[in-house]
Amino acid sequence: MAQAVQASIGDSEFDRDTAVSLRAPGVYDAELSAGWTIVRAVNGGYLLALLGRALGEALPHPDPFTVSAHYLTASQPGPAVIRTEIVRTGRTLSTGQASLVQFEEDGTEVERIRVLATYGDLDALSDDVRTTAAPPAMAPYEQCLGPADGPVAIPGSSAITERLNIRLDPATVGWAVGAPSGKGEMRGWFSLADGRDADPFSLLLTVDALPPTSFELGLTGWTPTVELTTHIRCRPAPGPLRVSITTRNLAGGFLEEDAEVWDSRDRLVAQSRQLAKAPR
Amino acid sequence: MAQAVQASIGDSEFDRDTAVSLRAPGVYDAELSAGWTIVRAVNGGYLLALLGRALGEALPHPDPFTVSAHYLTASQPGPAVIRTEIVRTGRTLSTGQASLVQFEEDGTEVERIRVLATYGDLDALSDDVRTTAAPPAMAPYEQCLGPADGPVAIPGSSAITERLNIRLDPATVGWAVGAPSGKGEMRGWFSLADGRDADPFSLLLTVDALPPTSFELGLTGWTPTVELTTHIRCRPAPGPLRVSITTRNLAGGFLEEDAEVWDSRDRLVAQSRQLAKAPR
Repeated sequence: MAQAVQASIGDSEFDRDTAVSLRAPGVYDAELSAGWTIVRAVNGGYLLALLGRALGEALPHPDPFTVSAHYLTASQPGPAVIRTEIVRTGRTLSTGQASLVQFEEDGTEVERIRVLATYGDLDALSDDVRTTAAPPAMAPYEQCLGPADGPVAIPGSSAITERLNIRLDPATVGWAVGAPSGKGEMRGWFSLADGRDADPFSLLLTVDALPPTSFELGLTGWTPTVELTTHIRCRPAPGPLRVSITTRNLAGGFLEEDAEVWDSRDRLVAQSRQLAKAPR
Repeated sequence: MAQAVQASIGDSEFDRDTAVSLRAPGVYDAELSAGWTIVRAVNGGYLLALLGRALGEALPHPDPFTVSAHYLTASQPGPAVIRTEIVRTGRTLSTGQASLVQFEEDGTEVERIRVLATYGDLDALSDDVRTTAAPPAMAPYEQCLGPADGPVAIPGSSAITERLNIRLDPATVGWAVGAPSGKGEMRGWFSLADGRDADPFSLLLTVDALPPTSFELGLTGWTPTVELTTHIRCRPAPGPLRVSITTRNLAGGFLEEDAEVWDSRDRLVAQSRQLAKAPR
């Protein structure tokens, strides 16, 4: 009897598409896969994960603790280079910088994203957990809606939706049927479609993988990320993640999106905030 | 009759102590004033403001929109150099990088803080405000407590307390009388002691000027900032600011502090999140 082989950490689409190869000290080659596009744009979380992996190679500590990314120009599927710099190494934390660049036809280098990040060892953290935040009130997985459920259609061709298993809370899909809630909220269950469990690098993808809260605020159109800072606080347990995103300050043509990622053991494994330009 | 001259934006202690002078293209001299120390350490928000001013000089856009700072080594009062780099300039936004460095006795350069920041023009933003966040429930100014009220004593010599007019909400000063609330909250009114109104650069100071929430969580000792990302969303109106800080994820020896700054017109003018190491 043929048995489906589930992907695993280290052997999955995500790992292959975020792999980097060292070409010179601190310089890595990467290939931006067209498999992680949303409406033809390469997903910002996928790019963040790629940069995170390069810095994980470059720095003496393995796990991203806090990653600050400023998005400069739109990335395109295809070859890219990541230039890293070690800023400081310490006993428990190290800080690095990374630039993802691509090249125009005439060879001009264009920077896409610049990142500052501090890394540590998540396995070395104490298990003293006094989190007072509570997991989001989320509809059970079976009641949440994914692309196959019909109405939740992402406009345009979006390869990333085939690689993610996102099920949105029915309370946050009004936008998909022309009835946005008016609340800056987006919630859902998240896992990788090929079954790979989450890890610190896939969490960098996760915080930017859901539809934007602007959809529920009745805005249509692109909500480009200006800057995204992510804290990875814990190695996620196996199993699906719950992602809850909130916007409370849509003003002056910009908005913030605060994301929380909770794992199957009810640990708050990642928190992020991005500043994005609101659609016009 | 002698009249006290109130300090103003551009002519105040804060402006003098965050001034930078250009010494070479993109390179600025600064003096880290001992006037902004807390328990002998130079306050992180003051340093952020200094870096913010240098980037404001270097970049074509005047106002910080989002500033991501990674704190590397402890700064000392005295001379410093800020090296800036223009990363990208656009029509409405520009991104830059800045490093604050100091020099050891043998001349070795040591980096203190590295910052990535995206700047714009706050006066060019639309006045379409749909903020759903609400100002914090704060005790009235007259009921809030400052250093002169006795029990709110900051341990150690702290020159910064003479330059700030901070009045803490009585609900968040239990730590000062040995009765911490156990809640990760710190709230208070904030203004500069010499009467200077707030501006985008002083907001960078404001988000890191209150006592740490760890005090109310019953922890004593140093809570050093690892990384601090601040969004400046609006030019603050004249008058005192309300600052509300919340911690919900004290875990594994680290904690996050989320700060909101509200102005006298009830605008949410700044939001920040820092990752800090919890006291042992």
